[in-house]
Amino acid sequence: MNLDIYKNLKRSNRELINLNPIQRGGILPVEAKKAIYEFWDGYSVCDFCSGRLDQINTPPVCKFLEDLAEFLNMDLARLTHGAREGKFVIMNSICKEGDYVVLDKNAHYTSYVAAERAKLNVAEVGYLEEYPTYKINLEGYKEVIDNLEDKNKSIGLILLTHVDGNFGNLNDAKKVGKIAKNKGIPFLLNCAYTVGRMPVDGKEVKADFIVASGHKSMAASGPIGVLAFNDEFSEKITKTSERFPIKEVEFLGCTSRGLPLITLMASFPYVVERVKKWSEEIEKTRYVVESLEEIGFKQLGVKPKEHDLVKFETPILDEIANRDKRRGYFFYDELKKRGIVGIKPGVTKEIKISVYGLEWEQVKYVVNSIREIVDKYA
Amino acid sequence: MNLDIYKNLKRSNRELINLNPIQRGGILPVEAKKAIYEFWDGYSVCDFCSGRLDQINTPPVCKFLEDLAEFLNMDLARLTHGAREGKFVIMNSICKEGDYVVLDKNAHYTSYVAAERAKLNVAEVGYLEEYPTYKINLEGYKEVIDNLEDKNKSIGLILLTHVDGNFGNLNDAKKVGKIAKNKGIPFLLNCAYTVGRMPVDGKEVKADFIVASGHKSMAASGPIGVLAFNDEFSEKITKTSERFPIKEVEFLGCTSRGLPLITLMASFPYVVERVKKWSEEIEKTRYVVESLEEIGFKQLGVKPKEHDLVKFETPILDEIANRDKRRGYFFYDELKKRGIVGIKPGVTKEIKISVYGLEWEQVKYVVNSIREIVDKYA
Repeated sequence: MNLDIYKNLKRSNRELINLNPIQRGGILPVEAKKAIYEFWDGYSVCDFCSGRLDQINTPPVCKFLEDLAEFLNMDLARLTHGAREGKFVIMNSICKEGDYVVLDKNAHYTSYVAAERAKLNVAEVGYLEEYPTYKINLEGYKEVIDNLEDKNKSIGLILLTHVDGNFGNLNDAKKVGKIAKNKGIPFLLNCAYTVGRMPVDGKEVKADFIVASGHKSMAASGPIGVLAFNDEFSEKITKTSERFPIKEVEFLGCTSRGLPLITLMASFPYVVERVKKWSEEIEKTRYVVESLEEIGFKQLGVKPKEHDLVKFETPILDEIANRDKRRGYFFYDELKKRGIVGIKPGVTKEIKISVYGLEWEQVKYVVNSIREIVDKYA
Repeated sequence: MNLDIYKNLKRSNRELINLNPIQRGGILPVEAKKAIYEFWDGYSVCDFCSGRLDQINTPPVCKFLEDLAEFLNMDLARLTHGAREGKFVIMNSICKEGDYVVLDKNAHYTSYVAAERAKLNVAEVGYLEEYPTYKINLEGYKEVIDNLEDKNKSIGLILLTHVDGNFGNLNDAKKVGKIAKNKGIPFLLNCAYTVGRMPVDGKEVKADFIVASGHKSMAASGPIGVLAFNDEFSEKITKTSERFPIKEVEFLGCTSRGLPLITLMASFPYVVERVKKWSEEIEKTRYVVESLEEIGFKQLGVKPKEHDLVKFETPILDEIANRDKRRGYFFYDELKKRGIVGIKPGVTKEIKISVYGLEWEQVKYVVNSIREIVDKYA
């Protein structure tokens, strides 16, 4: 066993401009980094625990959960290990084996996998249009539900992906919330790409459950997630053990502790502030789209952009790759030379990027760098 | 919402001598702290991921899982969010609803709660003796299994707590391993308090599954756990999604990423070394027991100690508490004055401590401090 490979673990992408949409929302502010020095040992948040994570007062976990619920305009909140684990908690506690989960065709793979793990079936709501917008037919939820009901299938949950990770399309959650209420089916909004980046109001969209991701969009190290829910479902979700009456079964007693939790808490004031500046982020994103479409990129997904995650078709990069001896890696290589990372190495047909949280100067640098690379090789 | 409470989060127990057995094995070595600076942003370990956490080469996650399996002498390993989550993965994938889990009466509460979440029943193997040793009757596994079989109950899993968190009793796992093999029932050894502190050899004890805890005993920030298992059960545990064939269902695709994983990896060489010095830790523990029994403490659990977690009956502290105006808090208070923490505030009838990983000088300082407090007030 060569243990030397674990010594001096370095991250080559550190301090570079990272365009990976999955990583831009999880970059720590300095406040969170400072808290890490205090709490890096295992079980450090448990110094003053009397048996329940959600009731710890030092550090203020208990108050934090109240504040998270308020931030999302929901009744209650719990910590999970991530959005996927939150979805599984809901499915496992609210649905019964064989139930259907009705979800959108842009749902994250973990929505399907969580359903599979909870032994549930899925029924998909398709697109209003496929290429190039891949816009979900939100009214289609009605039809899918009606069809299942006609076949006497039991529907346990309606799930909508608030913003998907493929096209960055923002769905009008309220529409689905209304359908869910009319049908009397519990409604889960997957906000892994929204909560912590943009304002989300659970009651406004009639969500029964919201899952969010600390590492994806709440400036936390992670893995950590938030599960917020309404009183109506509290009994099922927070059911306690028969033998250990203070331990919540679905959370196996306690979930996320340590640095994931500490960074989520320490970043919270910063996150509360940054969601207020969402319109500026949209402005940056639209600037990027406009600039890159001028050099031959084509934005996929709904236009104009309402989220920072952008997918482009990039035939111009593909053309260059066919001629360059580095093949598809030329683009990754050229960006890296300019201190920019986060593009999948070797891929040139389509790229996904985000400039979320970058300064305007950096955004312009990114656009100019890409323009320069295309100019140089096209 | 008062966001100021999340600013400058401090840990009052930092840098003090911490006797809490749950925390002593999770203290980070400097190597892990250094790696934190590199990887503190969310999804940082995913820079070069192509869809599976267990196949990431930079940082060397893939090799790490192989090394973990080798370290435990098991065939395969996966990361979980903790030992409890590992137990749930096994129960949910190996057992079927209503099955019995046969476990020891000293099992951690999460063993029961994981079974409850997986909709399983539990049957307990009791003590050979209750007070004062609370030694588990390992041969009793046979009887409990026979009884269940006589009643035509389906037994899905045998679970043994290698060392329990209440008395710190070390069980002879091989005995139960043999019983499990004879009966043909899968055998899970919960090593949350052993793997990372002392040597554990999975094949030697005939374990089919081992769960371990990064934050409890492997010098990691956590939450993170290891689930090691043998080939025979690989198909069930690592079953992949029908729709997403590279994603493992029981792990919801990916589990622990970020700082929990980075600290576990960076600490691994340190952990591999420290388990070799286990006999010295036992020596320290026995010295503490001997010294404190001289001043009226009484060690509970099996004697002589074979693990660092010690539970004492402390009638002498209780006597003092009855007279002191601080009541039970006097002991916590007096220790804290001396830079020692980790004793439950207010509790004086019984205390749990560990000196695991402390220098001999510190161990002696702890013993002398306790002696001094008792001398002063008794």
